[in-house]
Amino acid sequence: MLERLNRYLEGSEKGVYVFLIWSFIGAVIGAVVGVVGIIFHILLEEVTAFRMSHPWILFLLPLGGLVIAGLYHLLRMQNDRGTNLILIAVRVNEKVSLRLTPLIFISTIITHLLGGSAGREGAALQIGGSIGSFIGRKIKLDEKDERIITMCGMSAGFAALFGTPVAAVVFSMEVITVGIMHYSAIVPSIIAAITATGISMACGVTPTAFTLESVPSLSPSGVGSVILLGMFCAGVSVLFCLAMETAGKYYKQIFKNGYIRIFVGGCIVVAITLLLGTRDYNGAGMDVIARAIAGEAEYPAFLWKILLTALTLGAGYKGGEIVPSFFVGATFGCVIGPWIGLPASFAAGTGMAALFCGVTNCPIASVILCVELFGAEGIAYYTLACAVSYMLSGYYGLYSEQKIMYSKMQPEFINKSVH
Amino acid sequence: MLERLNRYLEGSEKGVYVFLIWSFIGAVIGAVVGVVGIIFHILLEEVTAFRMSHPWILFLLPLGGLVIAGLYHLLRMQNDRGTNLILIAVRVNEKVSLRLTPLIFISTIITHLLGGSAGREGAALQIGGSIGSFIGRKIKLDEKDERIITMCGMSAGFAALFGTPVAAVVFSMEVITVGIMHYSAIVPSIIAAITATGISMACGVTPTAFTLESVPSLSPSGVGSVILLGMFCAGVSVLFCLAMETAGKYYKQIFKNGYIRIFVGGCIVVAITLLLGTRDYNGAGMDVIARAIAGEAEYPAFLWKILLTALTLGAGYKGGEIVPSFFVGATFGCVIGPWIGLPASFAAGTGMAALFCGVTNCPIASVILCVELFGAEGIAYYTLACAVSYMLSGYYGLYSEQKIMYSKMQPEFINKSVH
Repeated sequence: MLERLNRYLEGSEKGVYVFLIWSFIGAVIGAVVGVVGIIFHILLEEVTAFRMSHPWILFLLPLGGLVIAGLYHLLRMQNDRGTNLILIAVRVNEKVSLRLTPLIFISTIITHLLGGSAGREGAALQIGGSIGSFIGRKIKLDEKDERIITMCGMSAGFAALFGTPVAAVVFSMEVITVGIMHYSAIVPSIIAAITATGISMACGVTPTAFTLESVPSLSPSGVGSVILLGMFCAGVSVLFCLAMETAGKYYKQIFKNGYIRIFVGGCIVVAITLLLGTRDYNGAGMDVIARAIAGEAEYPAFLWKILLTALTLGAGYKGGEIVPSFFVGATFGCVIGPWIGLPASFAAGTGMAALFCGVTNCPIASVILCVELFGAEGIAYYTLACAVSYMLSGYYGLYSEQKIMYSKMQPEFINKSVH
Repeated sequence: MLERLNRYLEGSEKGVYVFLIWSFIGAVIGAVVGVVGIIFHILLEEVTAFRMSHPWILFLLPLGGLVIAGLYHLLRMQNDRGTNLILIAVRVNEKVSLRLTPLIFISTIITHLLGGSAGREGAALQIGGSIGSFIGRKIKLDEKDERIITMCGMSAGFAALFGTPVAAVVFSMEVITVGIMHYSAIVPSIIAAITATGISMACGVTPTAFTLESVPSLSPSGVGSVILLGMFCAGVSVLFCLAMETAGKYYKQIFKNGYIRIFVGGCIVVAITLLLGTRDYNGAGMDVIARAIAGEAEYPAFLWKILLTALTLGAGYKGGEIVPSFFVGATFGCVIGPWIGLPASFAAGTGMAALFCGVTNCPIASVILCVELFGAEGIAYYTLACAVSYMLSGYYGLYSEQKIMYSKMQPEFINKSVH
């Protein structure tokens, strides 16, 4: 035994060396992505506040779209595939250009300033992933280590924007090939995520946190209600994914030219916003999410958000689908909750996680997101809702480059792309 | 889009059907295993209380060992491989005999009554797994579904004994093939785990929960200290695994006969207990764990616990290694914490998770265990400690049938057995 212990200690020298290097790299990536992420975060808040106080700016959305299309054209990224690009980077180590960072940064700011319906985490993943991948190439990492550093960047980007470091890490390890956890990235990723979170806290950005008004205690009726909520959320997830895909497809079919496409898309979003007579669906809608989790939401809000997000992102505006999925889940949960015997606030929080799980196929990241946002009390219910939503949402998803490695129904290797 | 939505809804009929069947099976397994588990739990508390008030009973340990050896002999399970058997059952669908349930049940009770140093979760996993597997055969599930039902049973057993349903589920999905999450079991497993937890709560057994005296806020020095704690815990994990393995090997080399082996082992445990002059290391030691997490522990406690657990289980006594690993992690963390700048109580809780992670190679289950036991506040630190312990604890582990599918250092498929 002593001999083997000795062998471990000798062997661990190399392990500790690798560990220290990765810790250092994780901290560097966390710091770089954290700083960029926090500037991004602050700018987004600024432009959102500006939009709120200058409602007329919405009318510039179609013109802003032309600027976005021009930028992508100029940097020869007009066939950009968004977050999918980062997934491929990790899965098959495709090169991600650093140009993606300023592009997605500026385009997302424009989208939010002018009132497109879009998120910001998708952008954060792309910024983090492209910075990580770029640094990896510069320091000449080998092909496998480059994947790790890209995951680090994703974790840091997500954490800097949302202040949920553990959900960021688990999401980055889980989303690419569902069912396989990329644990070799766990140390640098958590260090990067904590560093990024620390930087954003030092800059006075408080981590996102919501207070659920009450968490029901475990009971058979509670379990039944949460299962129902999970089932409904699975259905809404599929609707969300199909809407995103369909909008993009039709836009491309009808408007071959990218400039016309984004201009018309912007006009449609403006028109629907004016028809609806509310600005709730422009931008990320964090205030609407917070209201839903406090127990207040409009009935059709989730449908309008799906429609407007699909029309915004499908046309070529930027930002990502994660916060919209939170919006849809929270508002849907909030209104459906009381019908199925759940407090509106709790159903909003749980619905948000279940919808996120349904569209990303990441049950563990969804549960941890809940824990970081709402605390640990309802963890069994969150897990139940996410499990049901995972199982019943089929092989749909936001990212067509995501692979689901094992069947949702049986322990069977399938390696299936989502659609 | 409507057509595809329709296709989803049509296809989902079958999905919902499978889902409902699995929910029902999960509830049944949860109820059956929950009831057995709760009887097991209550009996363990009873015999522990009896041992505490009748210290002389320790002297019967060698005789109790003969009874255990006799029982295993009688039921022709003398080559029993403990929790490994359940791992093989899920991994390659080997049949687990229902005889395992009464055997491990009674043997663990005897071990705890008479003061062997052993846990109870290992037993719970075996009880749950063998009941699940048995019911699966009776209702003629196919080979793949049998694996799912075995995982359900494991989750329910773990949850009934520890009151941490989500950690139970994630552990069952994660432990068998590290790096591959068996998500197809997630719905029935969480339903089984919640049912079992509900039953134990209805019987007045409160879920295990500890209060950490304080959780340090995120800071560079805190991160450094937690990394150090994780590194030390990785080393102690390896020591723990090697001690378990070595004790078993030497016992078998020296005493070919199982009866003599367990009798002598019992005598050694009695002798060391008398020499130490404390009964802290007999039984599961939940009180010592609670004291450590409140901030109080003896310096060499973790070493004595490793020694006595190795000598107890290696000789053939039963119960499992999980609670001893909690004991070792909590007492080690408690004493090392103040040396590296961490509050003793927080370091005890974090050390417990990091050690559990080091010996089981299950980072996510370890983090969720922390969240369920201590609350969400310190989740970033728990994840960091577990990540470091995971990366640096090498390919050692408690269960020789566990497979680590991907390298801990690079995203590379290795399919390696732990040793």
